[in-house]
Amino acid sequence: MDAQQEISPEDVEPLALAGGVLDFEGLSIVENGGVSSAAGFRAAGIHAGFRADPQRLDMALVVADEPCACAATFTQNVFCAAPVTVSRDHLDGVSYGTARCLVVNSGVANAATGSKGLEAAEQVAEIVGAAVGCPASEVMVASTGVIGVHLNLSTFETGAPRAVLALRENDGSSAARAIMTTDTQPKEYAVSFSGDGIGYPGATFTVGGMCKGSGMIMPNMATMIACLTTDAPVAPNTLHTCLKRAVDLSFNKITVDSDTSTNDSCYLFANGAAAPGCKAFEPDGDALKLFNCALEAVCGTLARRMAADGEGATRLITVRVAGAATEDEADACARTIANSPLVKTAIFGHDANWGRIAAAAGRSGARFEQENVSIDIMGMPVMRKGLPVPFDEEEALRRFERPEVDIAVDLGAGTSTATIWTCDFSHDYVTINGDYRT
Amino acid sequence: MDAQQEISPEDVEPLALAGGVLDFEGLSIVENGGVSSAAGFRAAGIHAGFRADPQRLDMALVVADEPCACAATFTQNVFCAAPVTVSRDHLDGVSYGTARCLVVNSGVANAATGSKGLEAAEQVAEIVGAAVGCPASEVMVASTGVIGVHLNLSTFETGAPRAVLALRENDGSSAARAIMTTDTQPKEYAVSFSGDGIGYPGATFTVGGMCKGSGMIMPNMATMIACLTTDAPVAPNTLHTCLKRAVDLSFNKITVDSDTSTNDSCYLFANGAAAPGCKAFEPDGDALKLFNCALEAVCGTLARRMAADGEGATRLITVRVAGAATEDEADACARTIANSPLVKTAIFGHDANWGRIAAAAGRSGARFEQENVSIDIMGMPVMRKGLPVPFDEEEALRRFERPEVDIAVDLGAGTSTATIWTCDFSHDYVTINGDYRT
Repeated sequence: MDAQQEISPEDVEPLALAGGVLDFEGLSIVENGGVSSAAGFRAAGIHAGFRADPQRLDMALVVADEPCACAATFTQNVFCAAPVTVSRDHLDGVSYGTARCLVVNSGVANAATGSKGLEAAEQVAEIVGAAVGCPASEVMVASTGVIGVHLNLSTFETGAPRAVLALRENDGSSAARAIMTTDTQPKEYAVSFSGDGIGYPGATFTVGGMCKGSGMIMPNMATMIACLTTDAPVAPNTLHTCLKRAVDLSFNKITVDSDTSTNDSCYLFANGAAAPGCKAFEPDGDALKLFNCALEAVCGTLARRMAADGEGATRLITVRVAGAATEDEADACARTIANSPLVKTAIFGHDANWGRIAAAAGRSGARFEQENVSIDIMGMPVMRKGLPVPFDEEEALRRFERPEVDIAVDLGAGTSTATIWTCDFSHDYVTINGDYRT
Repeated sequence: MDAQQEISPEDVEPLALAGGVLDFEGLSIVENGGVSSAAGFRAAGIHAGFRADPQRLDMALVVADEPCACAATFTQNVFCAAPVTVSRDHLDGVSYGTARCLVVNSGVANAATGSKGLEAAEQVAEIVGAAVGCPASEVMVASTGVIGVHLNLSTFETGAPRAVLALRENDGSSAARAIMTTDTQPKEYAVSFSGDGIGYPGATFTVGGMCKGSGMIMPNMATMIACLTTDAPVAPNTLHTCLKRAVDLSFNKITVDSDTSTNDSCYLFANGAAAPGCKAFEPDGDALKLFNCALEAVCGTLARRMAADGEGATRLITVRVAGAATEDEADACARTIANSPLVKTAIFGHDANWGRIAAAAGRSGARFEQENVSIDIMGMPVMRKGLPVPFDEEEALRRFERPEVDIAVDLGAGTSTATIWTCDFSHDYVTINGDYRT
């Protein structure tokens, strides 16, 4: 008998899953942590009036006590929104520099609004800067909501001073709620690490943040927005390198519906307040390594929560690809599987459909031979050597009750790996995005 | 007032839509035309027993009276099915040569079946060759259905002789029905053109065909399959060039859910029976030009019908992109819009959502400036110079009642164009693909 022809469940070992990327030694979770957990930052969320419902918070403000280092990453969409352009300009076009605060409104995206929209975003920076007490150039601006509608500046004029009065330390929850659109829950998280042993004895550093997003969102709605803060001392250009790395490993590794919005922005502020007077973290030192871990833990957790809260989602899906010839091919393969409507509807239907996963891998552009491919779903081997492995369907249905579904693919073509997070595709996704007129 | 800021409906002209690509001078539609309309071809569809339901046809056979030129295009998926590999081998690996017939079974895809599956596909060619009276090497094999299941060869042994007995001229309808899976209707079409004035006086040439496919199809189901026949005299290598061009302009321009199947195959047989004893069409002659038009008309029509019959589809969507810098960018832009779940659910919801179209164009990789972009939906201008144009929502709802929705985008960045056909994304798509366990 040809060994390639008959593979029984007894013959196969489960694929070793990559270790949880969010487990790092030396990090502590900050209870109820969020965007103002780091020392020297305050945050507020208020109802300013962008939305009709007075119960709904719609303006968030995050302020550093002093001007501090700031780095940002922005959408690559050609149709980028006015606040993206203005914030990028305020950071001198290099996406890092010095800033004091971030203001976010929900309800109106200020995208596809032309030069009038750009002027409005500049005006927002002026208004908020005056309320906070800093130049407009130190104000970062973000908007999320309907595309093609102009901002009401008077709402900022009345709202900004009220938001300043509402600023609180150690409580980012109202700000996290104020930036929500179709999100079903606020997303905030923070971790801390000790300066002992990394050159900052006695200091405790905190990295915290909040984000929003669950698809390119409702009809004409746009965006993922994230704001991160830390009291670690990091120079702006180093901060930008750290942020880009963390974003690549987290927010850039999730996909709800493959649609990149016009307003995506991620900000990171660093004020050094946890170690006043100390020198900045060295680019290659142990302190920066631990900081990178903390940043990755916060970004990764927020990103996973965003994927889990995808429009209509019932399950978080983690797609891990191993054995790829190159990192780009590993990423392409994982992304193709994660974006496949057939894979996503199968998971919604609690169907351990290895055929759709194999077909998606096969069209991803990754180079491999089908006879070298292994696939596990939720830890159950379903394919070895490119051939199906019988599995216990009852057990599969039991495992589908878990809130997370893990898909592991080994292409057997190299040593590169990638992980992408997504969610399943349900009737509610179609309802949320298609029932515009009802 | 800045002209960029305020655009009223009175100020804009509708985008000129590209002319229907399927209107060609000199072609006549063959009434009830299909895969056996061309002279010298016969076809049959029978219930052989691959499916449990005895009412359901599941085996199609298309036979040329004599061995003739044959060209084919196949899936690029690494997980290609066994019949794809075997048919490619029979064409000496160059995807053109001489062949006599095509057999298609539905119900079982013979994909992910290893070397046993390859042997089975070879056996199918032997069995069918014996029944037709030709060597196995002249038999093309195609399968569609469940992945990972082995073919029952005895069903071919009993079915092939019965299929041969059922062969008919001028009636491809049973064959077109036998290859269906989740398709809601059979898809066949044929056109003819006169040889007068192109060097073949008195001759009438016919190009006809059939296809199936409406997504990567049901759980573990796979495939688009098309079979085309012509009685025009075309040499195998020329035929392959013609087929590749036509497929690129038709089947490769549709997308239901962005998933490329493991079994996609398109075959074209040419026997010259309409002009016996005449020389083959010259590569650059007028006859071949008209033949290319006929082939494009047949492939384009079949492809549009496939998109319109996409799983759960309620509307055919035509996405036309003009003004792109390159053809690749035009294609990428049109494809990104056509694959966007947000655009497709919006059309399902009768929402003329230009914001999602603009956002999809913006992330497609096509280079352009937002202030140069125009968008029309169903002939209604909705964006000019990157800014929204007010439109009559009542009129839009009326136009959404049509079975086809046209999206036209002008990027204002060049002269290249592309057209992609797709369908909307409905609750039924999720039901068809997600309700596996119910």
